Amino acid sequence: MTRAPEIELRINLDPETLLGPGKAALLQAIDETGSIAAAGRRLEMSYKRAWYLIDTMNTYFSEPVVVSAKGGNSRGGARLTATGRKVLDSYRRMEKKARSAIARDLANLAGLAAQKEP
Amino acid sequence: MTRAPEIELRINLDPETLLGPGKAALLQAIDETGSIAAAGRRLEMSYKRAWYLIDTMNTYFSEPVVVSAKGGNSRGGARLTATGRKVLDSYRRMEKKARSAIARDLANLAGLAAQKEP
Repeated sequence: MTRAPEIELRINLDPETLLGPGKAALLQAIDETGSIAAAGRRLEMSYKRAWYLIDTMNTYFSEPVVVSAKGGNSRGGARLTATGRKVLDSYRRMEKKARSAIARDLANLAGLAAQKEP
Repeated sequence: MTRAPEIELRINLDPETLLGPGKAALLQAIDETGSIAAAGRRLEMSYKRAWYLIDTMNTYFSEPVVVSAKGGNSRGGARLTATGRKVLDSYRRMEKKARSAIARDLANLAGLAAQKEP
C-alpha cells in the first residue's frame, strides 16, 4: 500500500513575495499563541526570521497582517489583523480546493510507485 | 492593476521524493532535447544535478522515467519512458486543475495587495 502523496501550494504573489506553507504556519501560530516570539519558537524559527516573513507580507498587502496587541513593542504580544485572517483563511481554503481538485490524479500517480519492502 | 499571482505545486511523493516545477521542467526539457546534458544546460543545471533528480524519480517509480536512447551511455541521448511521460503529463494536468480550482480565491487575495507606484 502506497502512502497518498501530500501537496504544498506555493503562491508567488509577486516576484518578491511568496506565500506558502511556512508563512501560513507562522500566521496560524501567531493566531494561536498571541506572540511572534512564541510562534517562532513553536516553528523553530528565530524571532528575526519570523519578523522578516511577517514584514514581507505587511509590505505586499495594503494593510498589515500582524500588529502588536497593545500598541508598542510587538514582543509584548501580537495578533492577526482582519487582513491577516483573510490571508490565512484564503490560503487554507486554496490548499483544500487544490487537494480536492487533484486527489484522483495524485492517487493514480502514487499507483506508479515502486512497492517498498515492508 | 495587480498582477495575478502564480502558483507552484509541490508534491511530496514520499518523505524523500518531491515532485515540483523543477523536476517537471527537467522531464520536459529531456523530452524536447533528447539529452540529459542539453536539458541541464537549458535549465542552467549541472549534468550531475540533472542526473541526481532523475535518479530520485527512477527510484520512486516502479519503472524508470528516463532511459538512454540507444542503450549504453545516457550522455549519448535520453528519452522519457511511458512512465516518465505519464508523470510529466500528470503533473501538468494537476497544475492546471489546481490553478483553475483556486483562480477566484487568488484574484480575491491579490485584491488585498497594496497598489504599487507605477
